[in-house]
Amino acid sequence: MIRIGVLGYGYWGPNIVRNFRSLGGCEVAMVCDRSPAALKRLKQAHPDQAVTTDPSELLTSATVDAVAVVTPVCTHFELAKAALENGKHVFIEKPFTSTTRQAEELVELAARKNLRIMVDHTFLFTGAVRKMRQLIDEGVLGDLYYYDSTRVNLGLFQHDVSVIWDLAPHDLSIMDFLIQDKPDAVVATGEAHLNGHVDVAYITVYFPRNTIAHVNVNWLSPVKIRTTLIGGEKKMLVWNDLEADEKIKVYDKGAQMNNGQGLYELLVSYRAGDMWAPRVEQTEALKVELGYFLDCVARSEPPLNDGVAGTRVVRMLEAADQSLKERGRAVTL
Amino acid sequence: MIRIGVLGYGYWGPNIVRNFRSLGGCEVAMVCDRSPAALKRLKQAHPDQAVTTDPSELLTSATVDAVAVVTPVCTHFELAKAALENGKHVFIEKPFTSTTRQAEELVELAARKNLRIMVDHTFLFTGAVRKMRQLIDEGVLGDLYYYDSTRVNLGLFQHDVSVIWDLAPHDLSIMDFLIQDKPDAVVATGEAHLNGHVDVAYITVYFPRNTIAHVNVNWLSPVKIRTTLIGGEKKMLVWNDLEADEKIKVYDKGAQMNNGQGLYELLVSYRAGDMWAPRVEQTEALKVELGYFLDCVARSEPPLNDGVAGTRVVRMLEAADQSLKERGRAVTL
Amino acid sequence: MIRIGVLGYGYWGPNIVRNFRSLGGCEVAMVCDRSPAALKRLKQAHPDQAVTTDPSELLTSATVDAVAVVTPVCTHFELAKAALENGKHVFIEKPFTSTTRQAEELVELAARKNLRIMVDHTFLFTGAVRKMRQLIDEGVLGDLYYYDSTRVNLGLFQHDVSVIWDLAPHDLSIMDFLIQDKPDAVVATGEAHLNGHVDVAYITVYFPRNTIAHVNVNWLSPVKIRTTLIGGEKKMLVWNDLEADEKIKVYDKGAQMNNGQGLYELLVSYRAGDMWAPRVEQTEALKVELGYFLDCVARSEPPLNDGVAGTRVVRMLEAADQSLKERGRAVTL
Amino acid sequence: MIRIGVLGYGYWGPNIVRNFRSLGGCEVAMVCDRSPAALKRLKQAHPDQAVTTDPSELLTSATVDAVAVVTPVCTHFELAKAALENGKHVFIEKPFTSTTRQAEELVELAARKNLRIMVDHTFLFTGAVRKMRQLIDEGVLGDLYYYDSTRVNLGLFQHDVSVIWDLAPHDLSIMDFLIQDKPDAVVATGEAHLNGHVDVAYITVYFPRNTIAHVNVNWLSPVKIRTTLIGGEKKMLVWNDLEADEKIKVYDKGAQMNNGQGLYELLVSYRAGDMWAPRVEQTEALKVELGYFLDCVARSEPPLNDGVAGTRVVRMLEAADQSLKERGRAVTL
Repeated sequence: MIRIGVLGYGYWGPNIVRNFRSLGGCEVAMVCDRSPAALKRLKQAHPDQAVTTDPSELLTSATVDAVAVVTPVCTHFELAKAALENGKHVFIEKPFTSTTRQAEELVELAARKNLRIMVDHTFLFTGAVRKMRQLIDEGVLGDLYYYDSTRVNLGLFQHDVSVIWDLAPHDLSIMDFLIQDKPDAVVATGEAHLNGHVDVAYITVYFPRNTIAHVNVNWLSPVKIRTTLIGGEKKMLVWNDLEADEKIKVYDKGAQMNNGQGLYELLVSYRAGDMWAPRVEQTEALKVELGYFLDCVARSEPPLNDGVAGTRVVRMLEAADQSLKERGRAVTL
Repeated sequence: MIRIGVLGYGYWGPNIVRNFRSLGGCEVAMVCDRSPAALKRLKQAHPDQAVTTDPSELLTSATVDAVAVVTPVCTHFELAKAALENGKHVFIEKPFTSTTRQAEELVELAARKNLRIMVDHTFLFTGAVRKMRQLIDEGVLGDLYYYDSTRVNLGLFQHDVSVIWDLAPHDLSIMDFLIQDKPDAVVATGEAHLNGHVDVAYITVYFPRNTIAHVNVNWLSPVKIRTTLIGGEKKMLVWNDLEADEKIKVYDKGAQMNNGQGLYELLVSYRAGDMWAPRVEQTEALKVELGYFLDCVARSEPPLNDGVAGTRVVRMLEAADQSLKERGRAVTL
Repeated sequence: MIRIGVLGYGYWGPNIVRNFRSLGGCEVAMVCDRSPAALKRLKQAHPDQAVTTDPSELLTSATVDAVAVVTPVCTHFELAKAALENGKHVFIEKPFTSTTRQAEELVELAARKNLRIMVDHTFLFTGAVRKMRQLIDEGVLGDLYYYDSTRVNLGLFQHDVSVIWDLAPHDLSIMDFLIQDKPDAVVATGEAHLNGHVDVAYITVYFPRNTIAHVNVNWLSPVKIRTTLIGGEKKMLVWNDLEADEKIKVYDKGAQMNNGQGLYELLVSYRAGDMWAPRVEQTEALKVELGYFLDCVARSEPPLNDGVAGTRVVRMLEAADQSLKERGRAVTL
Repeated sequence: MIRIGVLGYGYWGPNIVRNFRSLGGCEVAMVCDRSPAALKRLKQAHPDQAVTTDPSELLTSATVDAVAVVTPVCTHFELAKAALENGKHVFIEKPFTSTTRQAEELVELAARKNLRIMVDHTFLFTGAVRKMRQLIDEGVLGDLYYYDSTRVNLGLFQHDVSVIWDLAPHDLSIMDFLIQDKPDAVVATGEAHLNGHVDVAYITVYFPRNTIAHVNVNWLSPVKIRTTLIGGEKKMLVWNDLEADEKIKVYDKGAQMNNGQGLYELLVSYRAGDMWAPRVEQTEALKVELGYFLDCVARSEPPLNDGVAGTRVVRMLEAADQSLKERGRAVTL
C-alpha cells in the first residue's frame, strides 16, 4: 500500500486525487493546499480526506511514501527537492521544472536516494499516442519525414508562464516519445500581445536525418484545434484529438522519387490509396498513468516518463525561449 | 479592343485563355507553347485560336498589345523583359520573378516605357479575401495580432521550385494585401526529403507593432488544408477556403487586460460571443482579375497587384530561402 | 427544504442524485434500488446517503415530500401512482408512461391531490432549445415549414422498449415545445432486425397549416448524429447538438413566390445571405430543470413540462406504434 | 461511328453534348433546342456544332442513330416514342417518364423494334456507388438491414415536378441497384409550402426480409446534405457524396443477439472496431455512362440501367405520390 501526499488542489489536483483514490494499491494519505477555498471544494467531493495547509507537514509526514506535486511550475523545484530529500518518490506536473539545471539536479538527487520521479506527460498514456507509437514501431509509417502539431485555443491554462511553457510541453513530450531520436536544434518565433507573456508561438525542432518537427501554440485563437500531422516515407497520418471517434486516420499516401530524366519530367510521383482509422482505446489516460506510477514505485523501476524524459522537454522549452528572444536563431541542444 | 498574346498553355494557361476569350473588350490574338501536345489540347477546346510554337513571334507581333506570361518561374524575367521592350503590357504568373533584382528591373523598365505589369495574385480577387479586407478596413477586427495560414496537400504544383516558391506566394500576397504594413524580418525553417527541393516549410514574418504572420506550407501532407486564422484586438476570424459556403467565420471573441493586482490574480480575461459567417461573393476570381487588368491597361492606371506588389512578395520569398538555409536566422527586409 | 426520494439508481439515477444533492432548498432523503450493485456504486460516490432496497419504504416515508421516478418505463405508472396516493410530488423520467390512459389517470390523480408532476424532458432546459424557442417566439424564423430531426447511433439506451420509445421522446417533446400547435396525425414506418424490438423508425407528424415534422431514430447507425433542421418562412436553422460550440446556425435563407407568369417562368425564387451562430448557454440542463422542479413544488405552480405535456408525448408515441404496425396508416390524434 | 442527336440544351444538355463530343466511336450529329438563347450558348462552346430548333428534323434525320432526350419529364414519353418509331436508340434523362404506363409502352416498343433504351441514372456510374455495390456483392456488409438517404438543399432543379420526382430518382435508382430485391410497398409523407408542389418529402420503401429503405428529400433546407447510411448485418457504411475524398466510410460495427436469459439481461451486444475508407475512382460518371451507352448500342446488349430499370423507379415514384396524397397509406408495388 503506497501512501500518497498530494500538493496542490487547483485546476488539475482534483483529477489526481480522484484517480489515486479510485486505484487499488495506494491511499491518499494527505492533501495540501494553502487556499481554504480549495480545501472546501475538496471536502465537498471527499468528506473523509485528511488535509493540511502546510506543505512541510505533508513533506515530512511519516505516513507519506510518494508526493504528487500539482502546483505552479515556479514551485516545482523546491517542493520536489524537499520531497526527495525526505525520501519520498515524486509524481510531478509538466513541465518538470523551470530550468534544465533544476531538472538535472532533481534527477541526480533521486538517483542518489534511489527514488522514482515521474513527470506527468499524460498524453503518453492515451490510446491515440500509444497507437501512433505502435504504428511507428511496427514500421507502418516508415522513416519519419515530419511531425507537425497545431494546439491553439482561446485562453490560457497557466498564469505564470508563456504559451510555450503552457501548451508546448504536451507536443514536445509526445514528439520525444514518438520520434525517439535526439533533437539537434530548436528555432522559435512568437509574439506577446497582452501582458508581456508570449501568447502566439511557432517552434521548429530539427532532428537528425531530415526529420523536422513543428509546434504551433496560440492562446488567442477563436477556435480550438488539436491536430497533428505525421508524414512518413510509407504512410502518413492525421491525429485529431477533438474527434470523439476516429482520432487517428492513417493514409496510404506517399511520394517517391522516379528514375526520370530530362528537364521537364516529373521526378517525384505521388500515391493515394485507402484511409484507415484504427480503433483507439478510450480509457482515462491519467488513471493508466497513475497506476503505472504505483507499479514503478513498487518495482523500483524507472518510468518511461521519468525525470530524464522531463529534462529533455525542459531543455527544448528553454531553447525555444532563447531562440524566440533572438528572433529565430537556432539554439543547438 | 486589347489584343492579348498568351505565353504558355500548361497547367494554368487554359484558364487564362478561356477567361480572356469570354471577356468583352479584348481578344486572344495568339497563344504560344513549345509543346505540340499543349497546342493540340488548345485546338480541341478552341479550334479557331491562332497559335505559334515560337515565343518571339508572339513577343514581336504587331497584333499583340499585352502579353500574359504563364510559364515556369525561371523563364519569367526573360519573357517579361522582352515583352516590355517590345512595348507590350504584361500579365504574369506568381511568383513574379526568381529574384528581387529581376523584379526591380522589370518594374523600372515598365515605368520607363509607361507600360502596366500585373502579377497574378488571383486570391486578391476572391470574395473571401475581399471580405476580409473589408472587415479590416472597417475596423471590425481592430488591431491585428496575428495572421496564421496552413496551406498543405499531397503533391507539388510547380516542378522547378521549392514548396516555398510554389505555395507561399498565395499567403504572402494575401498577407501583404490585408496587413498593409511593411514587414521587418523573415524567419524560415524547413526540410527537403525527396529530390533536394524543400517540401515542408514554416515561415514567420515579423511586422511592426507586434503583428506576427506565419505560413505553414507542405507538399507531403495526407490531407489538403487551406485554413487561415486572423486574430484581432476586437474580433477574430477563420477563413477555410475549402468550405463550399461559410468560407469566413467571424468570432466575437477576444482577450483583454484587467486592472487586477496581486500575484495570483487573473490579469487577462477572455470573452466569447456569437459567430457570424458573412455571405461571400462566389464569382470566378480569375475572370474578375483579368477584367481588372484590361481596365488598368485601358485607363493607364497601376493595378493594386502591380510589379511593386509582386516585388514585395519576391523579396519575402528570397528572405525565406536565405533564412531557411541558415536554420532560422532572421533576415531583415 | 423539500425532501426528495429517488427511485432507481441505474443509468440516469446517479445524475438525478448528484444534481439534487448539489442544489439548495432540498435534500435527498432516501435513494431506493433493488440492486445491491447499484447501491454499492451509490455508497462509493455518496457515503453518507440513506438508502433502501424497498420502494414502499420510500413511497410511504414521512420524510419524503417528492419522489423522483428513475426506473424502466413499464414501472412508471405503478410507482408514480403510489407516490401521488401517498401525497408526494412526482418527478418522472421520460417517457411519462406506457400508455395515454395511464398518463391521463396520473394527471387526474395529481390534480385531485393538488400535487405536481414533472416529466423529465431534459432538452427543454438546454441553452440550445431555449434559444430556438426564443428565435421562434420573436418571429425570427417566421411561420414554420418543417421540423426534421435525425437521432441515430449504435446501441440502445433502454432495454424494455423500441427505438421509438427510447429516442423519439426527446424529439417529440422538443417539437411540442417549439411548434406550440396541436398535431393532427402521425405516420410511422420502421423495422425490427434483431430481437423483435423496432430498431429503425421514421415518424412523420402532421400539424395544421402545412407544418410537418419528421423524426429519424435508429439504433443501428455506425455514426452518432444529433441534427435537426427547422425551416421557416423567413429563416432556417440547423441544430447540431454534437458541436461543442456553434450548436445552432441560423441561415438568412429562404424561398418566396414570384408573381411570374407563363409556363416556363421560375415561380419560386431563392435567397441566400449570412449565417449566424448565436452564443448558447452551456449550463447543465438537468440541474436547471431540477431547480425549476423545486420552484414549481414550492410555489404550487404547474411546470411547463407537466403531466399534460408528458401525456401529449405519450399520445404521439402510441400513435406512432399503431401507425408502424399498420405500415404507415395515418393515426389521427 | 454512332451518330447522336441531342434533344434539349438546358441545364443538363451541355454536359451530354460535351461528353459525347469527347468520346471516340460517336459524333454529335445534331443538337435541338427551341430556345435561341440555348443555341447561342451552344455555339459559343462548340462553334462547329450542327443545330436545329425543330425536334422532328432531328427525330427523322437519316444521319442520327441514337437520340439523347434531355428535356423536361412531361415531354419524355412523346419524344422517346417518336425516336423509337423512327428507329433510333434512346438515351433519356431520369425520371424515365411521367407514368408507369408510359414507361412500359416505351419498353415494349423498344423490344419490338430491337432498340436500346438507357435511362440516365448517372450515379450508378460513380466510383462511390460502384464501390458500395462491390462491398455488397462481396458480402462485406452481410445482409442489408436498412438504406437511409438524406438529399436536401435549397432550391429546385426541375420546375415542372415535385421534390420527389426531382431528387428521389437518384436514391431510388441507387437503392434499386444496391439492394437487388423487389420492393413490397411504398409509404410517403410530405408537404407543399410555396406553389403547390411538394417541397419536403419522406419516402419509406419496404423490401422483403426486413430490409427497409428511407429517402429524405427537401428543397427548403438551408444546408446541402448528400448522406446515405447503409446498415448491414456484418458492417455498416456512410456515403457522404459531398466529401472530396473519403466519400465512403466502412465501419466494423455491428450488433448481435446474445443467448442471454432473464428479464434484465442485455440481449443484444454491440461491437465497434476500425473504420476504413476505401479509395474511390474519381472519373466523371457521365462520361463512363455515355461510353457504356455506345457499347450497348454497338453490341446490341441491354444496359443495366435500361428501360426496365427506369420503369421500376417510375413505379416507386408513382406509388410515393399516391401514398403521400393519402397521408402515408402503404401502396403495394
